[in-house]
Amino acid sequence: TSFLRKLRLYVIVGSAHTAGRPVVSVAQEAIRGGAQIIQLREKELPAKAFFETARALREVTAKAGVPLIINDRADIAAAVGADGVHLGQEDLPIAAARRILGEQAIIGVSTHSVAEALRAEKEGADYIGFGPVFPTRTKPEYAAQGLEALQKVLSQVRLPVVAIGGITPANLPAVIKTGVKRIAVVSAVASAPDVAASAALLLKMLEGSY
Amino acid sequence: TSFLRKLRLYVIVGSAHTAGRPVVSVAQEAIRGGAQIIQLREKELPAKAFFETARALREVTAKAGVPLIINDRADIAAAVGADGVHLGQEDLPIAAARRILGEQAIIGVSTHSVAEALRAEKEGADYIGFGPVFPTRTKPEYAAQGLEALQKVLSQVRLPVVAIGGITPANLPAVIKTGVKRIAVVSAVASAPDVAASAALLLKMLEGSY
Ligand code: NI
Repeated sequence: TSFLRKLRLYVIVGSAHTAGRPVVSVAQEAIRGGAQIIQLREKELPAKAFFETARALREVTAKAGVPLIINDRADIAAAVGADGVHLGQEDLPIAAARRILGEQAIIGVSTHSVAEALRAEKEGADYIGFGPVFPTRTKPEYAAQGLEALQKVLSQVRLPVVAIGGITPANLPAVIKTGVKRIAVVSAVASAPDVAASAALLLKMLEGSY
Repeated sequence: TSFLRKLRLYVIVGSAHTAGRPVVSVAQEAIRGGAQIIQLREKELPAKAFFETARALREVTAKAGVPLIINDRADIAAAVGADGVHLGQEDLPIAAARRILGEQAIIGVSTHSVAEALRAEKEGADYIGFGPVFPTRTKPEYAAQGLEALQKVLSQVRLPVVAIGGITPANLPAVIKTGVKRIAVVSAVASAPDVAASAALLLKMLEGSY
């Protein structure tokens, strides 16, 4: 999936982090601003509502030519024809998700240490998320890993690494200095007053053109 | 699925209702007592732990020649090669689960009214659960439907109907009088001091041999 090589800005949306706006509108605005991949993460919704949001997002992302990744639920990913699934350490094993979604599917894995990152690579992930780089309310159960740990992961993992966790325009320059090329954000885009402008700023910074 | 025509005793297991025993042991004992189908229902477990329990149950049920149904998660059902999935009203649509699991899969649906039962039939369910017949702690969010409602469903639905909700040896004779041939139980078997004996008693009563 050569798409992942070019990836810079990964935006995660979910009904808990839209500042009251519909998830689909937030995703549309994020794409308008430059989000290159959209992940739908719903931790509290029943499957039916999660599926319905995923189906609506599938239409919007397909029109825009932007890949759609579903968090955790490979069945919902399969049901809506998403491009892949993102798995946490407590989610399905990669091989199980791969069996359901097929060889072409993009499978990403959340990792929180070098060991987890190397294991995900070995088990066949297409990319890894690494973090939280900074403290974040979205994943309060994990301690912030910091920039040194990110650098260590980058030096040991061949897969595309997506830095995640508390990244904002204010700390992004320090993140970029580690050599990482890709970031994922939830709040910094999806909860921002101007979603498109926030995505656009982050993308410009990642592309070195700001 | 002619198997469903002969079904009498459907046992649901899950880590929240084992009286502290391992889920797999409880299922084994239930099968030894006569459970003819096992459903794994895990509402709180992360997907990985749910998957691991499902995989262990798949071994045990396959050895016994007893079908295994997974609650809600079609991806976990597919990943472990379960026989089917059981869907609540807030779970994936039947068609979406069918697409993932294939035509041969057994798909059951929880219903709580004649209207829901008829809709599930129309949408392609293989069987319906109907209840709760009596008040139950397992599904506190639904009001008990009672025996008259069960009778009404039986008269209007052609699919196999499985009565569920608060059924015990004490009230089973009244349940059987409605004409229903199949019951599903959680606590009455999985939380019983003697799981196998409890299953055996219910099965005997359902077969009219007690
Ligand atoms: Ni997670």
